Amino acid sequence: MQPGPDLQTVSIYAPVVAQLAQVEEQLRELCQTDIADLDPLLDYALRSGGKRVRPALTLLAAGFHEHERRRSLIMASAVELLHLATLIHDDTVDNAGMRRGKPTINKLYGSHVAVLLGDYLFATSATFVCDTEVIRVIRRFSETIMELASGQLIEFFTTFDPTKARRLYDERIYRKTASLFCTSAESGAILSGAPENQVQALRRYGYNIGMAFQIVDDLLDVQGDASEIGKPVGNDLLQGVLTLPTIMLTERYPDDHPIDTLFGAIKNGGGDVDGLLKQSLAMINDSGIVPDCFAIIRDYCAAAAAALDDLPDCPPRRSLLEMVDYIRERSR
Amino acid sequence: MQPGPDLQTVSIYAPVVAQLAQVEEQLRELCQTDIADLDPLLDYALRSGGKRVRPALTLLAAGFHEHERRRSLIMASAVELLHLATLIHDDTVDNAGMRRGKPTINKLYGSHVAVLLGDYLFATSATFVCDTEVIRVIRRFSETIMELASGQLIEFFTTFDPTKARRLYDERIYRKTASLFCTSAESGAILSGAPENQVQALRRYGYNIGMAFQIVDDLLDVQGDASEIGKPVGNDLLQGVLTLPTIMLTERYPDDHPIDTLFGAIKNGGGDVDGLLKQSLAMINDSGIVPDCFAIIRDYCAAAAAALDDLPDCPPRRSLLEMVDYIRERSR
Repeated sequence: MQPGPDLQTVSIYAPVVAQLAQVEEQLRELCQTDIADLDPLLDYALRSGGKRVRPALTLLAAGFHEHERRRSLIMASAVELLHLATLIHDDTVDNAGMRRGKPTINKLYGSHVAVLLGDYLFATSATFVCDTEVIRVIRRFSETIMELASGQLIEFFTTFDPTKARRLYDERIYRKTASLFCTSAESGAILSGAPENQVQALRRYGYNIGMAFQIVDDLLDVQGDASEIGKPVGNDLLQGVLTLPTIMLTERYPDDHPIDTLFGAIKNGGGDVDGLLKQSLAMINDSGIVPDCFAIIRDYCAAAAAALDDLPDCPPRRSLLEMVDYIRERSR
Repeated sequence: MQPGPDLQTVSIYAPVVAQLAQVEEQLRELCQTDIADLDPLLDYALRSGGKRVRPALTLLAAGFHEHERRRSLIMASAVELLHLATLIHDDTVDNAGMRRGKPTINKLYGSHVAVLLGDYLFATSATFVCDTEVIRVIRRFSETIMELASGQLIEFFTTFDPTKARRLYDERIYRKTASLFCTSAESGAILSGAPENQVQALRRYGYNIGMAFQIVDDLLDVQGDASEIGKPVGNDLLQGVLTLPTIMLTERYPDDHPIDTLFGAIKNGGGDVDGLLKQSLAMINDSGIVPDCFAIIRDYCAAAAAALDDLPDCPPRRSLLEMVDYIRERSR
C-alpha cells in the first residue's frame, strides 16, 4: 500500500492536499538521522501507508482562518507521528504480526527494537509540537499521550471481564482513540487563531468522530474479512478485549452467550477456541447487535456534524462533514 | 529500600532536602488517579527507592538565584519521572527480573503492562514540564527523551560488535545517560533565571558527571557483587552489551580475549557461558583496565568540577562539588 489518502478520501482531503504532501515530506525528512541503523526502521514505520486521517483533521480544523501555515503543518505531522508511535507499541504489547497487510515492526525487528522505536517516535512527536511554541497546545499534546497510554491500560485491566469492560467502555475508547481526534482538531483550531467557541466546536467534532471511528473499528473486527482490514477477524476477542458488539452480546444473552466459555478456553489453552470464536461472531452478526451499533455510530456522527453548525460554510467545513459520512459508511 | 537519599548523600542534599521531600510528595500524589487498577502500579514504580540524583541536580543547579520555586520543583519531579519511565522500558526490553533488589514491573505485571506504564510515565513527565511554561525547557526535555531512546537503540545496534561499540561508545553513553544529567542541570539553571554563561556551565557540569556516572556503572557491572548493585554481575556482557572495560579488553588483547567465544556461546545457546563470563571478568579485573577506567572517570569528574569555576561559592556549589566526589568514589 502506498502512503497517502486512498481514492475514497481524495475529495475530503481536497482543501489540504498540498499541505498533506508537505506532511509526507516532513515525515520523510525524519528518516535521515545521524544513526545509520535507525533510518531504515524509521522509513518502514513512517511510510507504511495509512489514511492520514488525523493530520487531515488538524489541517481542516485550521482551515477556517488565515494563519501561519508552518505551525498547523508541524502539528499535523506531530499527530500522525504520535499515532504511528502508538500503533508500534500497541502491536508490540498485543504481539501482533500484521498491520495494514504488512509485517509489524515487532515481528520484523523484535519487541526490543519496537519498544524503543515507539519511545523515539513519541518523543519526536512531542519535540515537533514544541515548534508550535504554543504552551496550551504542547500541554494538551502531552496529556493526550497520557490518555492514549492509560486507555490501553484500561483495555488491559478490563480484558476477560465483561462487567468491568462495560463500565469503563466509554472512558476507554475516549482515551485510546477519541482523545487524539479531539486534540488533532482542537490544536488545528487553536493554531489558526480561531475564537474559543470555534475551538470548542471543533474539539466536540473531534470527540464525536473519534468515538464513532472506534466503534466502527470494533464492528470491523467482528464482521470484516481479514484481507480487507489487514489483520485477522475476531482478534479483539482472542485477546480477551471486549468491544461494544461483544459487550452487547453478553448483556442480551446473559445465559446463552459463548463468551465465558471462549475466554476459559483461551486462558486455559484448551477447548475449541476457533469454533467458539466463530460461534460468538455468528451470534453477534445474526442478532440485532450490528444495527444497534450502527445506531450509536450514527448518533456520534450526528453530534459531530452538529458541532459544526455555527462554523461558516467553506471548503474545510464541507470536508469535515464529508469526513463524518465517510466514517459512518466505513464499516458498511 | 526506602525512597529518598541514603546516608552518604545526606550532606550533598542538605541545601535542597526540604524541596526533595516536596518532590516525593508530588510523586506520591501521582499515585492517585481515577483508574483504580493503575494506582498500585504507579505506587510500585514511583516509590521504589533510588537516590533521586537527577532531581537533586536540578534543584542544586537552580539554587544559585532566587526564583519561583514552584517551577524548579516541577522540573525536578519531571526529570525523576522520566528517569523512572526509562528504567521500566529498559528492564522490559532487557527482560530484567530485578532492579534495586526488588522484582521489576515487567517481572511482576508482564511486559504488556510495563510498556504501557512506561509510556504513561514518559507522558506524565512531559506534562509536568509544561507547567514550567518555558518553551526552551520543554523542547529540551522532549529532545532528551529522543536521546534516551536513541541511546538505547544504539546500544542494541552495537551489541555483540566490539568495533562498532567502540566507535559509538561516547555517543551512546551521552544519549542514554549524560543527556538527562545535562538537561536536569541546565533546566534548573534556566528556570532559576541564571545568566546564559551559568546555564552553559551547569550544562557542562551535567554532561561530565553524567559521562562519569555511566562509566562507573559500566565498572560496577564487571566488578560489583550482586547484593550491592541489586542485579547480577556481568549482566551487560550476557546481553552482548560492550561497555568501556570490555571494549578495552578486546583492544588490548585482540588475540587472547574470550569475548568472541563468549558471544558465540551466548548466541548459539551452547558452550560454557558461565565459565567464559567469569574468565572475561577476571581478565578485566586482573589487567590494568580498571585503573584506566578510573583515570577516565577522574578526567570527567575534573571537567565537571572545573565547569563550576566561575560560579559563586555557596551551599549549592559546594554540594555539586561534593556530588562529583561522591560519583568518583561510588565504584571504589
